[in-house]
Amino acid sequence: MIYLDNAATTMQKPDCVVHAVAEALTSLGNASRGAHDAALSSNRVIYRTRAALAAFFGCPDPSKVIFTNNSTEALNIAIRGTIGEGDHVITTCLEHNSVLRPLYLLQEEKGVRLDFVQADRKGCIRYEDLEDLICPDTRAIVCTHASNLTGNVLDIERIGALAKRRGLLFLLDASQTAGYFPINMEETGVSVLCFTGHKSMMGPQGTGGLCINGDIEVKPFKVGGTGVQSFLTSQPEEYPTRLEAGTLNGHGIAGLAAAVDFLTRTGIDRIRDHEANLARRFYLALRGIPEVSVYGDFETGERCPIVAMNIGRVDSAVVADELFNSYGIAVRAGAHCAPLMHKALGTTKQGAVRFSFGYFNTTEDCDAAAEAVAEIAQGGE
Amino acid sequence: MIYLDNAATTMQKPDCVVHAVAEALTSLGNASRGAHDAALSSNRVIYRTRAALAAFFGCPDPSKVIFTNNSTEALNIAIRGTIGEGDHVITTCLEHNSVLRPLYLLQEEKGVRLDFVQADRKGCIRYEDLEDLICPDTRAIVCTHASNLTGNVLDIERIGALAKRRGLLFLLDASQTAGYFPINMEETGVSVLCFTGHKSMMGPQGTGGLCINGDIEVKPFKVGGTGVQSFLTSQPEEYPTRLEAGTLNGHGIAGLAAAVDFLTRTGIDRIRDHEANLARRFYLALRGIPEVSVYGDFETGERCPIVAMNIGRVDSAVVADELFNSYGIAVRAGAHCAPLMHKALGTTKQGAVRFSFGYFNTTEDCDAAAEAVAEIAQGGE
Repeated sequence: MIYLDNAATTMQKPDCVVHAVAEALTSLGNASRGAHDAALSSNRVIYRTRAALAAFFGCPDPSKVIFTNNSTEALNIAIRGTIGEGDHVITTCLEHNSVLRPLYLLQEEKGVRLDFVQADRKGCIRYEDLEDLICPDTRAIVCTHASNLTGNVLDIERIGALAKRRGLLFLLDASQTAGYFPINMEETGVSVLCFTGHKSMMGPQGTGGLCINGDIEVKPFKVGGTGVQSFLTSQPEEYPTRLEAGTLNGHGIAGLAAAVDFLTRTGIDRIRDHEANLARRFYLALRGIPEVSVYGDFETGERCPIVAMNIGRVDSAVVADELFNSYGIAVRAGAHCAPLMHKALGTTKQGAVRFSFGYFNTTEDCDAAAEAVAEIAQGGE
Repeated sequence: MIYLDNAATTMQKPDCVVHAVAEALTSLGNASRGAHDAALSSNRVIYRTRAALAAFFGCPDPSKVIFTNNSTEALNIAIRGTIGEGDHVITTCLEHNSVLRPLYLLQEEKGVRLDFVQADRKGCIRYEDLEDLICPDTRAIVCTHASNLTGNVLDIERIGALAKRRGLLFLLDASQTAGYFPINMEETGVSVLCFTGHKSMMGPQGTGGLCINGDIEVKPFKVGGTGVQSFLTSQPEEYPTRLEAGTLNGHGIAGLAAAVDFLTRTGIDRIRDHEANLARRFYLALRGIPEVSVYGDFETGERCPIVAMNIGRVDSAVVADELFNSYGIAVRAGAHCAPLMHKALGTTKQGAVRFSFGYFNTTEDCDAAAEAVAEIAQGGE
């Protein structure tokens, strides 16, 4: 199998991640729940991982690195914990349902007003539109760093500067970019960064989190046992306990720590170069196939290693099935949880076939995929 | 180290669990997010685990086995998703903060009325008291299957029958008992069972869930990407999608599946016999030490393999530190997230030293611990 679905999850994890998780499964106790070696070693793993992630994302305070099960949970905490009645929120048409559905819920339950920055047929936004939507009751800009469908990247420096200038919260969905692009949330002015561990971070599923920049008050989401302040009837106020309840995924977090080590040791610039070259090579090959439409902006600046395309009007699922069944190439078809992006691209019905490259892919994978697309395009039209 | 903190987490997992997680880390895609082999194998692992857990807990419908990060998340979903304005809830003084804090939150935010069944100095409740608290607006009985502090077990058959007779929801916190006692939620009349994977189930941290019996409506908690029905603005209605958002912990779930296999293959009766014998042996040894107070009911029926105790009036943390530093015995001291239980036992200030036995403990571990307690008791008084 040639795995080109790395934007969904990086299937192959570095060996050090596998080893770290396996070792944790025979040695970790329950963090914060005892003062013996096993519990302390779990505490140390978790604290060290908080510190490593804080350094990795430029989060000033490691105690404001909060662990969650995935990016979706982090986004629920960040969005629903900071936005409330009477607030106006600006978001974009690039968003994943993990951003959209929490916002729609706030719209319904708390009367939060939403405005969407529109995207053009290439999936690009105009930053002037974003600024134009700001009004006196705007509380936050909530957006993705990159579209999970087209791979287009938003200029978070520009958005961060705008948010800072206008006194707005800037909640960033970095699901597709954490581990791929360097992000310094303090320099960029990101208020809350939400990430997942199992995509470009190359860590285990069941890991992810949010990083909070400064004194932003985020309301508790889950409440329960914290191992400290047991006689309080409410969730303790201080971070990270305020936003974490119950036993953390210590085993997964040990793997995430190893993944951060791997990224740092290997160098994310080197990893990104490799993946970007593969995606570019694939894109250039597709451009030569007349039946193929490629979505997204390949002219302006950097992008995620994603190439979304269709062959004529063939249903994207049919193409993906053919790629897998006849060529053993694993990609993803359909809506990709990005309904507004499909509306902008005009692909609501057809969906799109998404190829996404990872560090363990080779130029052979890339060329085999391009050849397969060419063959399907010739046969299918 | 002699690890006797299994009620916090079973530190040593069966080999098959470690192997299953390690294998998943190099082969699983993202469940529900593609139609290629890697995604399908993840789907299969997850579906098979739902089915195995449904069979294990007597849940009639595998699609109503919902995966969460831990028991606390499951309890938040179950409690906050079924109880609302105007409801009255009966719970007990045995509860962990993972039950108490969601209930206190509902009391504060929705005006939910709470009543607590009191416990005596042995940590036992009277079931007549529970029945006496039922009133016309009682919506649910929410309780633990066993105290995480004393190891006392509640009679869930009796509570289930009562709930059924009076038309109440019965939400069960099985954190301490799942994997230790056989539970058949359909026969027992449990409406929602909440469990964690990393204690007596012997699975990885970051796993757990809730099982829903029949047509009980549980409101969504997290909302976001579901990989299906992407054009819906709200979370899809059907289970399990309704209560799961974002990428599941496929790697952990693969380990949980192996753990359920291990429990079934080994036989939980055999596992329970072993652990219960160790706990009983330890308890009998402690009874011979005059300075030692043991908490809980050791006369009536079955119990969890937990022995909570103190030496005279010595702070429980001092004893636990001495056990670890001088004897290498890992136990837990303090409040154990069970504030009302400590009030009932009269140990609010002192806390308690909890010894909890697991499948990989031996009689040698047990005897070494008893001897250590005897020595500390002689020295410390």
